Amino acid sequence: MIIIGEKINASIPSVRDAIGRRDESFLADLAGKQDTAGADYIDVNAGEGGEGAATMRWLVDVVRSATNKPLCLDSDDPSVLRAGLEVYRGDRVMINSVNAEPDRLKMVGSLAARNDACVIALVMDEGGIPRTVEERVRAADVIVKALADHGIAEERIFFDPLVLPVSVDSIQAGVTLKTIEALQKRYPAAGTVMGLSNISYGLPARGIVNRAFLLMAAAAGLDAAILNPLDKRLMTLVATADLLTGRDSRCKRFIRSYRRGELVQ
Amino acid sequence: MIIIGEKINASIPSVRDAIGRRDESFLADLAGKQDTAGADYIDVNAGEGGEGAATMRWLVDVVRSATNKPLCLDSDDPSVLRAGLEVYRGDRVMINSVNAEPDRLKMVGSLAARNDACVIALVMDEGGIPRTVEERVRAADVIVKALADHGIAEERIFFDPLVLPVSVDSIQAGVTLKTIEALQKRYPAAGTVMGLSNISYGLPARGIVNRAFLLMAAAAGLDAAILNPLDKRLMTLVATADLLTGRDSRCKRFIRSYRRGELVQ
Repeated sequence: MIIIGEKINASIPSVRDAIGRRDESFLADLAGKQDTAGADYIDVNAGEGGEGAATMRWLVDVVRSATNKPLCLDSDDPSVLRAGLEVYRGDRVMINSVNAEPDRLKMVGSLAARNDACVIALVMDEGGIPRTVEERVRAADVIVKALADHGIAEERIFFDPLVLPVSVDSIQAGVTLKTIEALQKRYPAAGTVMGLSNISYGLPARGIVNRAFLLMAAAAGLDAAILNPLDKRLMTLVATADLLTGRDSRCKRFIRSYRRGELVQ
Repeated sequence: MIIIGEKINASIPSVRDAIGRRDESFLADLAGKQDTAGADYIDVNAGEGGEGAATMRWLVDVVRSATNKPLCLDSDDPSVLRAGLEVYRGDRVMINSVNAEPDRLKMVGSLAARNDACVIALVMDEGGIPRTVEERVRAADVIVKALADHGIAEERIFFDPLVLPVSVDSIQAGVTLKTIEALQKRYPAAGTVMGLSNISYGLPARGIVNRAFLLMAAAAGLDAAILNPLDKRLMTLVATADLLTGRDSRCKRFIRSYRRGELVQ
Protein backbone atom coordinates (compact mmCIF):
# COMPACT_ATOMS: atom_id res chain seq x y z
CA MET A 1 0.00 0.00 0.00
CA ILE A 2 1.20 3.49 -0.81
CA ILE A 3 1.47 5.61 2.35
CA ILE A 4 0.91 9.35 2.23
CA GLY A 5 2.17 10.87 5.49
CA GLU A 6 -0.44 13.27 6.83
CA LYS A 7 1.42 15.13 9.56
CA ILE A 8 2.54 18.33 7.75
CA ASN A 9 -0.93 19.81 7.90
CA ALA A 10 -1.86 23.23 9.21
CA SER A 11 -5.08 21.85 10.68
CA ILE A 12 -2.92 20.16 13.35
CA PRO A 13 -2.41 22.82 16.07
CA SER A 14 1.29 22.14 16.73
CA VAL A 15 1.99 22.28 13.00
CA ARG A 16 -0.06 25.45 12.54
CA ASP A 17 1.93 27.07 15.34
CA ALA A 18 5.23 25.92 13.84
CA ILE A 19 4.20 27.37 10.47
CA GLY A 20 3.16 30.59 12.21
CA ARG A 21 6.57 31.08 13.79
CA ARG A 22 8.37 29.77 10.65
CA ASP A 23 9.96 26.97 12.69
CA GLU A 24 11.92 25.17 10.00
CA SER A 25 13.55 22.61 12.26
CA PHE A 26 10.25 21.39 13.75
CA LEU A 27 8.72 20.91 10.32
CA ALA A 28 11.82 19.42 8.67
CA ASP A 29 12.08 16.99 11.56
CA LEU A 30 8.43 15.97 11.18
CA ALA A 31 8.92 15.42 7.45
CA GLY A 32 12.11 13.42 7.98
CA LYS A 33 10.52 11.23 10.63
CA GLN A 34 7.62 10.34 8.31
CA ASP A 35 10.12 9.49 5.56
CA THR A 36 12.06 7.19 7.90
CA ALA A 37 8.83 5.61 9.18
CA GLY A 38 7.95 4.48 5.67
CA ALA A 39 5.86 7.23 4.07
CA ASP A 40 5.98 7.06 0.26
CA TYR A 41 4.66 10.62 -0.14
CA ILE A 42 4.66 13.53 2.29
CA ASP A 43 1.41 15.50 2.31
CA VAL A 44 1.95 19.25 2.63
CA ASN A 45 -0.99 21.41 3.68
CA ALA A 46 -0.11 25.04 4.40
CA GLY A 47 -3.54 26.07 5.63
CA GLU A 48 -6.11 28.55 4.45
CA GLY A 49 -6.04 32.31 4.43
CA GLY A 50 -4.59 35.15 2.40
CA GLU A 51 -0.97 34.13 2.78
CA GLY A 52 -1.61 30.54 1.72
CA ALA A 53 0.43 30.76 -1.49
CA ALA A 54 3.50 32.28 0.16
CA THR A 55 3.26 29.82 3.06
CA MET A 56 3.01 26.86 0.68
CA ARG A 57 6.12 28.01 -1.21
CA TRP A 58 8.07 28.28 2.03
CA LEU A 59 6.75 24.97 3.38
CA VAL A 60 7.58 23.04 0.20
CA ASP A 61 11.18 24.25 0.45
CA VAL A 62 11.41 23.31 4.13
CA VAL A 63 10.00 19.82 3.58
CA ARG A 64 12.16 19.19 0.50
CA SER A 65 15.23 20.07 2.53
CA ALA A 66 14.41 17.17 4.86
CA THR A 67 13.32 14.40 2.51
CA ASN A 68 13.66 13.15 -1.03
CA LYS A 69 10.24 11.53 -0.92
CA PRO A 70 7.79 13.04 -3.38
CA LEU A 71 5.24 15.49 -1.99
CA CYS A 72 1.48 15.51 -2.07
CA LEU A 73 0.48 19.17 -2.29
CA ASP A 74 -2.74 19.60 -0.40
CA SER A 75 -5.10 22.58 -0.68
CA ASP A 76 -8.66 23.48 -1.60
CA ASP A 77 -7.32 26.58 -3.30
CA PRO A 78 -5.86 26.07 -6.80
CA SER A 79 -3.72 29.21 -6.43
CA VAL A 80 -2.04 27.66 -3.38
CA LEU A 81 -1.46 24.42 -5.31
CA ARG A 82 0.03 26.46 -8.15
CA ALA A 83 2.38 28.24 -5.76
CA GLY A 84 3.61 24.92 -4.37
CA LEU A 85 4.11 23.44 -7.83
CA GLU A 86 6.14 26.48 -8.94
CA VAL A 87 8.84 25.87 -6.35
CA TYR A 88 8.65 22.07 -6.29
CA ARG A 89 11.72 20.17 -7.51
CA GLY A 90 11.25 16.44 -7.96
CA ASP A 91 10.33 13.91 -10.57
CA ARG A 92 6.93 12.99 -9.08
CA VAL A 93 4.28 15.06 -7.37
CA MET A 94 0.71 14.47 -6.28
CA ILE A 95 -2.08 17.05 -6.07
CA ASN A 96 -4.64 16.73 -3.27
CA SER A 97 -7.34 17.24 -4.50
CA VAL A 98 -9.86 17.75 -7.25
CA ASN A 99 -13.53 16.74 -7.43
CA ALA A 100 -16.26 16.78 -10.06
CA GLU A 101 -17.02 20.52 -9.83
CA PRO A 102 -16.45 21.88 -13.36
CA ASP A 103 -14.44 25.00 -12.38
CA ARG A 104 -12.21 23.10 -10.01
CA LEU A 105 -11.68 20.30 -12.53
CA LYS A 106 -10.59 22.85 -15.12
CA MET A 107 -8.14 24.67 -12.86
CA VAL A 108 -6.62 21.64 -11.16
CA GLY A 109 -6.63 19.62 -14.38
CA SER A 110 -4.61 22.31 -16.09
CA LEU A 111 -2.13 22.48 -13.18
CA ALA A 112 -1.74 18.70 -13.10
CA ALA A 113 -1.22 18.54 -16.85
CA ARG A 114 1.49 21.20 -16.85
CA ASN A 115 3.34 19.55 -13.93
CA ASP A 116 2.92 15.85 -14.84
CA ALA A 117 1.25 15.41 -11.48
CA CYS A 118 -0.86 12.58 -10.12
CA VAL A 119 -4.23 13.75 -8.82
CA ILE A 120 -6.34 12.68 -5.86
CA ALA A 121 -9.96 12.95 -7.03
CA LEU A 122 -12.85 13.02 -4.57
CA VAL A 123 -15.84 11.33 -6.22
CA MET A 124 -18.30 14.10 -5.39
CA ASP A 125 -19.45 17.38 -6.87
CA GLU A 126 -20.58 20.67 -5.33
CA GLY A 127 -23.58 18.86 -3.79
CA GLY A 128 -21.42 17.16 -1.12
CA ILE A 129 -20.71 13.49 -0.45
CA PRO A 130 -23.21 11.26 -2.29
CA ARG A 131 -24.86 8.53 -0.25
CA THR A 132 -24.72 5.83 -2.90
CA VAL A 133 -22.08 3.93 -4.85
CA GLU A 134 -23.76 4.80 -8.15
CA GLU A 135 -23.64 8.56 -7.57
CA ARG A 136 -19.97 8.33 -6.60
CA VAL A 137 -19.16 6.37 -9.75
CA ARG A 138 -21.00 8.99 -11.81
CA ALA A 139 -18.81 11.68 -10.27
CA ALA A 140 -15.75 9.58 -11.18
CA ASP A 141 -17.00 9.44 -14.79
CA VAL A 142 -17.17 13.23 -14.92
CA ILE A 143 -13.66 13.52 -13.46
CA VAL A 144 -12.06 10.96 -15.80
CA LYS A 145 -13.58 12.62 -18.85
CA ALA A 146 -12.52 16.14 -17.84
CA LEU A 147 -8.98 15.09 -16.90
CA ALA A 148 -8.65 13.15 -20.17
CA ASP A 149 -9.41 16.43 -21.98
CA HIS A 150 -6.27 17.78 -20.26
CA GLY A 151 -4.29 14.74 -21.42
CA ILE A 152 -4.24 13.16 -17.96
CA ALA A 153 -4.50 9.37 -18.18
CA GLU A 154 -6.36 7.13 -15.73
CA GLU A 155 -2.98 5.93 -14.40
CA ARG A 156 -2.43 9.35 -12.84
CA ILE A 157 -5.73 9.45 -10.95
CA PHE A 158 -6.21 8.22 -7.37
CA PHE A 159 -9.90 8.19 -6.53
CA ASP A 160 -10.95 8.93 -2.98
CA PRO A 161 -14.12 6.80 -2.56
CA LEU A 162 -15.22 9.06 0.35
CA VAL A 163 -16.26 8.05 3.82
CA LEU A 164 -19.34 9.12 5.76
CA PRO A 165 -19.38 8.38 9.50
CA VAL A 166 -20.88 5.04 10.43
CA SER A 167 -22.47 6.84 13.39
CA VAL A 168 -24.60 8.77 10.91
CA ASP A 169 -25.62 5.79 8.80
CA SER A 170 -24.67 2.22 9.64
CA ILE A 171 -24.32 1.09 6.03
CA GLN A 172 -21.83 3.79 5.04
CA ALA A 173 -18.69 1.73 5.62
CA GLY A 174 -20.09 -0.79 3.17
CA VAL A 175 -20.90 1.96 0.67
CA THR A 176 -17.27 3.11 0.76
CA LEU A 177 -15.89 -0.43 0.37
CA LYS A 178 -18.24 -1.14 -2.54
CA THR A 179 -17.22 2.18 -4.12
CA ILE A 180 -13.56 1.08 -4.02
CA GLU A 181 -14.49 -2.15 -5.80
CA ALA A 182 -16.73 -0.43 -8.34
CA LEU A 183 -14.11 2.19 -9.21
CA GLN A 184 -11.41 -0.44 -9.64
CA LYS A 185 -13.61 -2.48 -11.93
CA ARG A 186 -14.55 0.53 -14.04
CA TYR A 187 -11.13 2.22 -14.06
CA PRO A 188 -8.59 -0.56 -13.49
CA ALA A 189 -5.60 1.64 -14.33
CA ALA A 190 -6.54 4.27 -11.74
CA GLY A 191 -5.75 3.93 -8.02
CA THR A 192 -7.81 4.45 -4.89
CA VAL A 193 -6.77 6.44 -1.83
CA MET A 194 -8.45 7.26 1.45
CA GLY A 195 -8.11 9.01 4.76
CA LEU A 196 -9.36 6.96 7.70
CA SER A 197 -10.66 9.19 10.40
CA ASN A 198 -14.06 10.24 9.04
CA ILE A 199 -15.49 6.72 9.48
CA SER A 200 -15.33 6.95 13.29
CA TYR A 201 -16.63 10.52 13.73
CA GLY A 202 -18.99 10.69 16.73
CA LEU A 203 -17.86 7.37 18.20
CA PRO A 204 -15.67 6.43 21.16
CA ALA A 205 -12.51 4.30 20.70
CA ARG A 206 -11.98 5.89 17.29
CA GLY A 207 -8.53 4.37 16.78
CA ILE A 208 -9.96 0.85 16.93
CA VAL A 209 -12.59 1.72 14.33
CA ASN A 210 -10.10 3.49 12.04
CA ARG A 211 -7.64 0.62 12.12
CA ALA A 212 -10.31 -1.99 11.44
CA PHE A 213 -11.60 0.06 8.53
CA LEU A 214 -8.10 0.30 7.03
CA LEU A 215 -7.92 -3.50 6.90
CA MET A 216 -11.38 -3.78 5.39
CA ALA A 217 -10.51 -1.17 2.76
CA ALA A 218 -7.27 -3.02 2.00
CA ALA A 219 -9.27 -6.20 1.46
CA ALA A 220 -11.55 -4.27 -0.91
CA GLY A 221 -8.44 -3.27 -2.87
CA LEU A 222 -7.41 0.15 -1.53
CA ASP A 223 -4.08 1.16 -3.10
CA ALA A 224 -3.04 4.10 -0.92
CA ALA A 225 -3.86 5.65 2.44
CA ILE A 226 -3.39 9.09 3.93
CA LEU A 227 -2.38 8.39 7.51
CA ASN A 228 0.08 9.02 10.31
CA PRO A 229 3.13 6.87 9.53
CA LEU A 230 4.51 7.59 13.02
CA ASP A 231 1.67 5.48 14.45
CA LYS A 232 3.42 2.11 14.72
CA ARG A 233 0.19 0.26 15.25
CA LEU A 234 -1.18 1.61 11.99
CA MET A 235 2.02 0.82 10.12
CA THR A 236 1.92 -2.73 11.51
CA LEU A 237 -1.53 -3.10 10.00
CA VAL A 238 -0.30 -1.70 6.69
CA ALA A 239 2.44 -4.36 6.66
CA THR A 240 -0.14 -7.01 7.57
CA ALA A 241 -2.57 -5.79 4.92
CA ASP A 242 0.21 -5.96 2.31
CA LEU A 243 0.98 -9.50 3.47
CA LEU A 244 -2.64 -10.60 3.17
CA THR A 245 -3.35 -8.89 -0.16
CA GLY A 246 -0.48 -10.59 -1.95
CA ARG A 247 1.69 -7.47 -2.00
CA ASP A 248 4.51 -8.96 0.07
CA SER A 249 6.14 -11.71 -1.97
CA ARG A 250 7.22 -14.63 0.23
CA CYS A 251 6.29 -12.56 3.30
CA LYS A 252 9.74 -10.96 3.18
CA ARG A 253 8.84 -7.47 4.36
CA PHE A 254 6.55 -8.71 7.11
CA ILE A 255 9.23 -11.03 8.51
CA ARG A 256 11.88 -8.30 8.24
CA SER A 257 9.62 -5.86 10.12
CA TYR A 258 9.11 -8.50 12.80
CA ARG A 259 12.86 -9.08 13.17
CA ARG A 260 13.45 -5.37 13.50
CA GLY A 261 10.87 -5.19 16.27
CA GLU A 262 8.69 -2.84 14.21
CA LEU A 263 5.46 -4.82 14.53
CA VAL A 264 3.24 -3.48 17.30
CA GLN A 265 0.06 -5.17 18.48
CA MET B 1 -21.12 -12.16 13.47
CA ILE B 2 -21.93 -15.54 15.00
CA ILE B 3 -19.20 -16.66 17.39
CA ILE B 4 -18.41 -20.34 17.89
CA GLY B 5 -16.23 -20.72 21.00
CA GLU B 6 -13.31 -23.00 20.20
CA LYS B 7 -11.87 -23.75 23.62
CA ILE B 8 -13.46 -27.13 24.45
CA ASN B 9 -11.16 -29.00 22.11
CA ALA B 10 -9.05 -32.02 22.94
CA SER B 11 -6.27 -30.76 20.70
CA ILE B 12 -5.57 -28.11 23.38
CA PRO B 13 -3.23 -29.82 25.92
CA SER B 14 -4.89 -28.47 29.08
CA VAL B 15 -8.30 -29.55 27.76
CA ARG B 16 -7.03 -32.97 26.70
CA ASP B 17 -5.64 -33.45 30.20
CA ALA B 18 -8.91 -32.32 31.81
CA ILE B 19 -10.83 -34.77 29.62
CA GLY B 20 -8.33 -37.51 30.53
CA ARG B 21 -8.92 -37.07 34.25
CA ARG B 22 -12.66 -36.43 33.76
CA ASP B 23 -12.34 -32.99 35.36
CA GLU B 24 -15.92 -31.75 35.08
CA SER B 25 -15.38 -28.46 36.90
CA PHE B 26 -12.49 -27.34 34.66
CA LEU B 27 -14.48 -28.04 31.50
CA ALA B 28 -17.77 -26.66 32.79
CA ASP B 29 -15.96 -23.51 33.84
CA LEU B 30 -14.37 -23.14 30.39
CA ALA B 31 -17.76 -23.58 28.73
CA GLY B 32 -19.44 -21.08 31.07
CA LYS B 33 -16.71 -18.49 30.53
CA GLN B 34 -17.11 -18.69 26.76
CA ASP B 35 -20.86 -18.29 27.14
CA THR B 36 -20.40 -15.18 29.31
CA ALA B 37 -17.81 -13.77 26.92
CA GLY B 38 -20.32 -13.78 24.08
CA ALA B 39 -20.03 -17.13 22.30
CA ASP B 40 -23.21 -18.00 20.38
CA TYR B 41 -22.26 -21.67 20.06
CA ILE B 42 -19.82 -23.79 22.08
CA ASP B 43 -17.69 -26.10 19.97
CA VAL B 44 -17.16 -29.52 21.57
CA ASN B 45 -14.31 -31.69 20.31
CA ALA B 46 -13.68 -34.83 22.36
CA GLY B 47 -10.60 -35.91 20.47
CA GLU B 48 -9.71 -38.96 18.46
CA GLY B 49 -9.21 -42.56 19.47
CA GLY B 50 -11.22 -45.61 20.40
CA GLU B 51 -13.14 -44.03 23.28
CA GLY B 52 -14.20 -41.00 21.23
CA ALA B 53 -17.92 -41.79 21.30
CA ALA B 54 -18.07 -42.37 25.06
CA THR B 55 -15.96 -39.27 25.69
CA MET B 56 -18.18 -37.15 23.47
CA ARG B 57 -21.30 -38.32 25.34
CA TRP B 58 -19.75 -37.42 28.68
CA LEU B 59 -18.39 -34.10 27.41
CA VAL B 60 -21.73 -33.00 25.93
CA ASP B 61 -23.37 -33.59 29.33
CA VAL B 62 -20.66 -31.66 31.15
CA VAL B 63 -20.83 -28.68 28.80
CA ARG B 64 -24.63 -28.62 28.80
CA SER B 65 -24.58 -28.46 32.58
CA ALA B 66 -22.69 -25.17 32.33
CA THR B 67 -24.41 -23.35 29.47
CA ASN B 68 -27.67 -23.07 27.59
CA LYS B 69 -25.88 -21.97 24.44
CA PRO B 70 -26.28 -24.44 21.58
CA LEU B 71 -23.35 -26.75 20.88
CA CYS B 72 -21.29 -27.30 17.79
CA LEU B 73 -20.34 -30.99 17.85
CA ASP B 74 -16.92 -31.34 16.30
CA SER B 75 -15.38 -34.56 15.03
CA ASP B 76 -13.99 -36.16 11.90
CA ASP B 77 -15.66 -39.40 12.93
CA PRO B 78 -19.40 -39.67 12.19
CA SER B 79 -19.84 -42.25 14.96
CA VAL B 80 -18.53 -39.70 17.49
CA LEU B 81 -20.91 -37.07 16.10
CA ARG B 82 -23.76 -39.58 16.40
CA ALA B 83 -22.88 -40.29 20.02
CA GLY B 84 -22.94 -36.59 20.84
CA LEU B 85 -26.25 -36.06 19.08
CA GLU B 86 -27.84 -38.96 20.98
CA VAL B 87 -27.35 -37.30 24.36
CA TYR B 88 -27.77 -33.70 23.21
CA ARG B 89 -30.75 -31.79 24.56
CA GLY B 90 -31.42 -28.43 22.97
CA ASP B 91 -33.41 -26.85 20.17
CA ARG B 92 -30.43 -26.06 17.94
CA VAL B 93 -27.24 -27.92 17.22
CA MET B 94 -24.43 -27.58 14.72
CA ILE B 95 -22.29 -30.35 13.24
CA ASN B 96 -18.62 -29.65 12.51
CA SER B 97 -18.04 -30.86 9.82
CA VAL B 98 -18.78 -32.43 6.48
CA ASN B 99 -17.01 -32.05 3.14
CA ALA B 100 -17.61 -33.18 -0.43
CA GLU B 101 -16.43 -36.78 0.06
CA PRO B 102 -19.41 -38.97 -0.92
CA ASP B 103 -19.29 -41.39 2.06
CA ARG B 104 -18.89 -38.61 4.59
CA LEU B 105 -21.67 -36.58 2.98
CA LYS B 106 -23.99 -39.54 3.21
CA MET B 107 -23.28 -40.30 6.86
CA VAL B 108 -23.19 -36.74 8.16
CA GLY B 109 -26.10 -35.70 5.93
CA SER B 110 -28.22 -38.45 7.43
CA LEU B 111 -27.24 -37.47 10.99
CA ALA B 112 -27.96 -33.79 10.33
CA ALA B 113 -31.32 -34.60 8.77
CA ARG B 114 -32.44 -36.73 11.71
CA ASN B 115 -31.36 -34.12 14.26
CA ASP B 116 -32.41 -30.93 12.48
CA ALA B 117 -28.80 -29.82 12.72
CA CYS B 118 -26.96 -27.03 10.95
CA VAL B 119 -23.83 -28.26 9.18
CA ILE B 120 -20.40 -26.74 8.70
CA ALA B 121 -19.27 -27.82 5.23
CA LEU B 122 -15.62 -27.63 4.16
CA VAL B 123 -15.53 -26.90 0.44
CA MET B 124 -13.05 -29.66 -0.40
CA ASP B 125 -13.13 -33.34 -1.21
CA GLU B 126 -10.74 -36.21 -0.46
CA GLY B 127 -8.09 -34.51 -2.59
CA GLY B 128 -7.37 -31.85 0.07
CA ILE B 129 -7.79 -28.06 0.03
CA PRO B 130 -8.21 -26.80 -3.55
CA ARG B 131 -6.01 -23.88 -4.58
CA THR B 132 -8.65 -22.00 -6.57
CA VAL B 133 -12.01 -20.36 -5.92
CA GLU B 134 -13.60 -22.32 -8.78
CA GLU B 135 -12.66 -25.73 -7.36
CA ARG B 136 -13.97 -24.72 -3.93
CA VAL B 137 -17.27 -23.59 -5.42
CA ARG B 138 -17.52 -26.91 -7.30
CA ALA B 139 -17.11 -28.75 -3.98
CA ALA B 140 -19.88 -26.56 -2.54
CA ASP B 141 -22.13 -27.57 -5.44
CA VAL B 142 -21.57 -31.26 -4.63
CA ILE B 143 -22.32 -30.62 -0.94
CA VAL B 144 -25.50 -28.60 -1.54
CA LYS B 145 -26.87 -31.23 -3.89
CA ALA B 146 -26.12 -34.16 -1.57
CA LEU B 147 -27.52 -32.40 1.51
CA ALA B 148 -30.64 -31.40 -0.42
CA ASP B 149 -31.20 -35.12 -1.09
CA HIS B 150 -31.37 -35.49 2.71
CA GLY B 151 -33.88 -32.65 2.91
CA ILE B 152 -31.34 -30.19 4.31
CA ALA B 153 -31.92 -26.68 2.97
CA GLU B 154 -29.22 -24.14 2.12
CA GLU B 155 -30.23 -22.18 5.24
CA ARG B 156 -28.76 -24.92 7.41
CA ILE B 157 -25.35 -24.96 5.71
CA PHE B 158 -22.36 -22.89 6.85
CA PHE B 159 -19.62 -23.15 4.26
CA ASP B 160 -16.03 -23.04 5.43
CA PRO B 161 -14.21 -21.34 2.50
CA LEU B 162 -10.89 -22.85 3.73
CA VAL B 163 -7.64 -21.10 4.41
CA LEU B 164 -4.17 -22.05 3.19
CA PRO B 165 -1.22 -20.34 4.89
CA VAL B 166 -0.11 -17.11 3.27
CA SER B 167 3.47 -18.24 3.97
CA VAL B 168 2.95 -21.07 1.47
CA ASP B 169 1.36 -18.93 -1.25
CA SER B 170 0.99 -15.18 -1.00
CA ILE B 171 -2.33 -15.03 -2.89
CA GLN B 172 -4.13 -17.52 -0.63
CA ALA B 173 -5.74 -14.95 1.66
CA GLY B 174 -7.31 -13.42 -1.42
CA VAL B 175 -8.48 -16.82 -2.63
CA THR B 176 -10.29 -17.38 0.68
CA LEU B 177 -11.89 -13.93 0.63
CA LYS B 178 -13.05 -14.38 -2.96
CA THR B 179 -14.42 -17.81 -2.06
CA ILE B 180 -16.55 -16.22 0.67
CA GLU B 181 -17.96 -13.75 -1.86
CA ALA B 182 -18.51 -16.40 -4.54
CA LEU B 183 -20.32 -18.76 -2.15
CA GLN B 184 -22.58 -15.98 -0.88
CA LYS B 185 -23.49 -14.98 -4.41
CA ARG B 186 -24.23 -18.56 -5.46
CA TYR B 187 -25.93 -19.68 -2.22
CA PRO B 188 -27.30 -16.51 -0.61
CA ALA B 189 -29.35 -18.42 1.98
CA ALA B 190 -26.32 -20.35 3.26
CA GLY B 191 -23.79 -18.92 5.71
CA THR B 192 -20.01 -18.84 5.81
CA VAL B 193 -17.82 -19.74 8.76
CA MET B 194 -14.09 -19.87 9.30
CA GLY B 195 -11.33 -20.59 11.75
CA LEU B 196 -8.54 -18.03 11.72
CA SER B 197 -5.28 -19.62 12.66
CA ASN B 198 -4.32 -21.48 9.47
CA ILE B 199 -3.66 -18.23 7.61
CA SER B 200 -0.64 -17.37 9.77
CA TYR B 201 0.97 -20.83 9.89
CA GLY B 202 4.75 -20.53 9.58
CA LEU B 203 4.83 -16.79 10.35
CA PRO B 204 5.86 -14.79 13.41
CA ALA B 205 3.40 -12.44 15.14
CA ARG B 206 0.56 -14.80 14.26
CA GLY B 207 -2.02 -12.99 16.39
CA ILE B 208 -1.61 -9.80 14.35
CA VAL B 209 -2.12 -11.72 11.11
CA ASN B 210 -5.11 -13.67 12.42
CA ARG B 211 -6.86 -10.55 13.70
CA ALA B 212 -6.27 -8.64 10.46
CA PHE B 213 -7.61 -11.55 8.47
CA LEU B 214 -10.77 -11.69 10.61
CA LEU B 215 -11.53 -8.08 9.65
CA MET B 216 -10.86 -8.73 5.98
CA ALA B 217 -13.09 -11.79 6.05
CA ALA B 218 -15.82 -9.78 7.79
CA ALA B 219 -15.59 -7.19 5.02
CA ALA B 220 -15.95 -10.00 2.47
CA GLY B 221 -19.15 -11.03 4.25
CA LEU B 222 -18.14 -13.77 6.71
CA ASP B 223 -21.15 -14.70 8.87
CA ALA B 224 -19.52 -16.74 11.63
CA ALA B 225 -16.10 -17.43 13.12
CA ILE B 226 -14.66 -20.23 15.21
CA LEU B 227 -12.41 -18.46 17.68
CA ASN B 228 -11.43 -17.95 21.29
CA PRO B 229 -14.10 -15.67 22.81
CA LEU B 230 -11.94 -15.21 25.92
CA ASP B 231 -9.50 -13.20 23.77
CA LYS B 232 -10.76 -9.67 24.44
CA ARG B 233 -8.79 -8.23 21.58
CA LEU B 234 -10.46 -10.60 19.14
CA MET B 235 -13.91 -9.89 20.58
CA THR B 236 -13.24 -6.15 20.24
CA LEU B 237 -12.57 -6.71 16.56
CA VAL B 238 -15.75 -8.75 16.23
CA ALA B 239 -17.70 -5.84 17.72
CA THR B 240 -15.91 -3.43 15.37
CA ALA B 241 -16.51 -5.68 12.37
CA ASP B 242 -20.21 -5.81 13.23
CA LEU B 243 -20.22 -2.01 13.50
CA LEU B 244 -18.58 -1.57 10.11
CA THR B 245 -20.63 -4.20 8.27
CA GLY B 246 -23.97 -2.64 9.20
CA ARG B 247 -24.78 -5.32 11.80
CA ASP B 248 -24.90 -2.92 14.75
CA SER B 249 -27.86 -0.63 14.28
CA ARG B 250 -27.12 2.90 15.47
CA CYS B 251 -23.79 1.63 16.88
CA LYS B 252 -25.62 0.59 20.04
CA ARG B 253 -23.66 -2.55 20.87
CA PHE B 254 -20.30 -0.96 20.12
CA ILE B 255 -21.01 2.00 22.38
CA ARG B 256 -22.34 -0.28 25.12
CA SER B 257 -19.18 -2.41 24.93
CA TYR B 258 -17.11 0.75 25.19
CA ARG B 259 -19.01 1.94 28.26
CA ARG B 260 -18.54 -1.44 29.94
CA GLY B 261 -14.81 -1.22 29.32
CA GLU B 262 -14.90 -4.32 27.11
CA LEU B 263 -13.09 -2.84 24.12
CA VAL B 264 -9.39 -3.67 24.12
CA GLN B 265 -6.86 -2.23 21.68
